[in-house]
Amino acid sequence: MILFGVLTCFLAGCLAQRPHPCSSPPLLSGGLTVDTQNEKLTMYGRYLYDALGQRIRVMELGSFENTTFTNDALLLYREGVMYEINDHDRTCVKKPLKVDFQPIAIPKDASLLAQVVLGSSSEPGQGLLVNTWVGDLPDKTGKVISTVTEFGCIPVGNLYHTDKFGWVLMNYFDNVLGIPDPERLNPPVFCGGAEMKVEDETDFLSLFMNKP
Amino acid sequence: MILFGVLTCFLAGCLAQRPHPCSSPPLLSGGLTVDTQNEKLTMYGRYLYDALGQRIRVMELGSFENTTFTNDALLLYREGVMYEINDHDRTCVKKPLKVDFQPIAIPKDASLLAQVVLGSSSEPGQGLLVNTWVGDLPDKTGKVISTVTEFGCIPVGNLYHTDKFGWVLMNYFDNVLGIPDPERLNPPVFCGGAEMKVEDETDFLSLFMNKP
Repeated sequence: MILFGVLTCFLAGCLAQRPHPCSSPPLLSGGLTVDTQNEKLTMYGRYLYDALGQRIRVMELGSFENTTFTNDALLLYREGVMYEINDHDRTCVKKPLKVDFQPIAIPKDASLLAQVVLGSSSEPGQGLLVNTWVGDLPDKTGKVISTVTEFGCIPVGNLYHTDKFGWVLMNYFDNVLGIPDPERLNPPVFCGGAEMKVEDETDFLSLFMNKP
Repeated sequence: MILFGVLTCFLAGCLAQRPHPCSSPPLLSGGLTVDTQNEKLTMYGRYLYDALGQRIRVMELGSFENTTFTNDALLLYREGVMYEINDHDRTCVKKPLKVDFQPIAIPKDASLLAQVVLGSSSEPGQGLLVNTWVGDLPDKTGKVISTVTEFGCIPVGNLYHTDKFGWVLMNYFDNVLGIPDPERLNPPVFCGGAEMKVEDETDFLSLFMNKP
């Protein structure tokens, strides 16, 4: 009888467990898309994310006001430097990066909007349990709606509002734990001689937001 | 040696298997949201879908041009009738439904845009393999981009373009195989005496598109 009671409490506890804000794994890589409400900017790319070394690489192919662009950027937050890399021409532009590294995470004070299953929970392999949160942008300039997986805290999508583009939808896909090509998180050899361009500052969001 | 050859061919065949257009399960229920580019319409609702009996019920809560609305509709395609149901007041409006039933499916001539994993494939339970297709709307008036799960062909999202709203994004969630409350696919008792209103015709998309 006592065992039954304990079991019931245990089961009830498990079922009653509410999602908690979480941090995504420190080493991640995958694909991402950016789409904007006013259709000025669309972007497709791949990213490497190293929260331990505070390094991000984003390789993008996009369209800004009907003009296509490519961009390949390595952001080294510890060193306060970013590189715009052109592998084809073996050229490199070095710029200051004067913002703090922001790990991919749901802020501690975020509010849960919904927990839903994408696809179906009826059969294994047909569904994905995700949590959607609303919280402040890291710089407190606005709100962000973020969806992450319940298991693993893998990013699925972010929705921001910007004055320039209206709503901006960033979707992640094909994420894997770890970095398949870690050498891409170091500046290429041909960046060795690049001089720092000091005229403009850059942060992570502006990589997508201030194209071209 | 022959066995090895057969095995290799079999494995290669499995790995080389490209996604094929598919039909969603005939009995489905779940939640859906509709969001429009121009923000005139947003909607949240639940649906029951019976492709065998050609019956759909959609219970919606939404906002059209900053005015909230609720809508509860039962569409009986075989009978060519739809009911707008008000459970609270026990009232019912009966209307003609002069369109063919369209099962949830990827058209046979659709083109695969991408196969991606939402979340991560690194750990079980953290990812969902989905296929995104572009095809014609059933009435050939435009294109639709549809995402369904690779396993089970469960709908995940649809993207349409409309003149009235710009891009319309319909997302499905919490889908289950089967109908938990089948009596909701029959007209309620209090609909028995409803007279047919003949002035306007309705189809499935217009349930969301012509609010209120």
